[in-house]
Amino acid sequence: MNRLANESEMKWMPLLYGVTAGLSSLVIVLMLVWTFHFRGGFAWQDFPSIQFNWHPVLMVVSFIVLYGHGILVYRLLRNEPKKKLKLLHAVMMITALLLASIGLKAVFDSHNLAEPPIDNLYTLHSWIGLSAVICFALQWLFGFVSFLFPGVRHSLRSSYMPLHVFGGLMIFGMASTAALMGLLEKAIFTRASYAPLTAEGILINCTGIAIASLSILIVYIATRWQYKRQPLPEDELLLADQLAE
Amino acid sequence: MNRLANESEMKWMPLLYGVTAGLSSLVIVLMLVWTFHFRGGFAWQDFPSIQFNWHPVLMVVSFIVLYGHGILVYRLLRNEPKKKLKLLHAVMMITALLLASIGLKAVFDSHNLAEPPIDNLYTLHSWIGLSAVICFALQWLFGFVSFLFPGVRHSLRSSYMPLHVFGGLMIFGMASTAALMGLLEKAIFTRASYAPLTAEGILINCTGIAIASLSILIVYIATRWQYKRQPLPEDELLLADQLAE
Repeated sequence: MNRLANESEMKWMPLLYGVTAGLSSLVIVLMLVWTFHFRGGFAWQDFPSIQFNWHPVLMVVSFIVLYGHGILVYRLLRNEPKKKLKLLHAVMMITALLLASIGLKAVFDSHNLAEPPIDNLYTLHSWIGLSAVICFALQWLFGFVSFLFPGVRHSLRSSYMPLHVFGGLMIFGMASTAALMGLLEKAIFTRASYAPLTAEGILINCTGIAIASLSILIVYIATRWQYKRQPLPEDELLLADQLAE
Repeated sequence: MNRLANESEMKWMPLLYGVTAGLSSLVIVLMLVWTFHFRGGFAWQDFPSIQFNWHPVLMVVSFIVLYGHGILVYRLLRNEPKKKLKLLHAVMMITALLLASIGLKAVFDSHNLAEPPIDNLYTLHSWIGLSAVICFALQWLFGFVSFLFPGVRHSLRSSYMPLHVFGGLMIFGMASTAALMGLLEKAIFTRASYAPLTAEGILINCTGIAIASLSILIVYIATRWQYKRQPLPEDELLLADQLAE
């Protein structure tokens, strides 16, 4: 790789990340406006239909915004030591999983505590979404064992890395798809039909477009070789230590 | 790149492509079973609600199966000359666009000719799906002008290529997402709720899972460097000709 070309290409990074941060904020604001203005705000088990609202908000915050930023840490904080970035990546991802678990608890409660109870896990949204959460948990576990657990051979780490990167991006794609499907499903369930478009329908569709744009941008930044973090001198020392073990 | 490693890695390609072909056939069969067994088969404008059925079938055949295979031609037919592959890629993609246009005509007709007419383009599925079709048409046009139109500078072609590849994969992701959203939407519209899961609901969800798996596999094959086509001697001659122009 041409390091000079790399440095000149890096000039777009602040703009790209600026748009990413802007879109992330926009998505969160749109979700909150939707929840407070149209869906009655937040509650827990005393009001199951309102408790539901934690589900879309927490899933988007955890599995779109936090997951997306967790993917980008190596590229955004490129001058930090590798060890620190690995820890930060793992902590962000496990936090995302915890928030998503609360988001799942909210939707199961809102179904099970409703009068009469509502069936769980029958829509395609729930099948894709739950698959994304399970794959994410497995991906975290494999990542932890391979890259943070001491004593794993360097050759094993290197050969697992491309699969970890591909898997991470694909699960992120599944999460985005599930988010759009969830918005669509809620829009249809909320009113028998959402035609002709109401203010709430337009808000939901625009939130979906913002989530799709954000996801594409994150995958773009994560897959350009120009933005790939280059090893620092101390990373090389760390690697030498591992190889000598 | 290590050509020896490349050749040894190629051993997985027949298996991976076998699964891709199997999943593609499965998706088409599931779509046809759904259409004939549950949705009344096919018709044109005399029966708008049945004419609708062309929409899901044609969109999946064109924008999942044909589009996916169009992406993979360079990797599957790696020993064919570049010029031939470029033409084949362009012909497959324009065929996909034509079939998708008939699929769009079917859904607009089924709305406009219904009694009373049904609104068009109000769901998030339609927004994402139509964006995918428009982006696809632009991508085809840019691709044609850049790579098939004679006289475009080689440097321009090379600098556009990474964006064409990224754009192509992202639009494919949008198409898959739109397909899953469309299945979900139809399942919900067809019965006020599809809970508890009926045979049709399970069929629809399984079709969605098959489409998602197929899409992930296609992106996997398309993004592994091991499967990237290596230039043939005659491609180099072609390139030398272009540079000499």
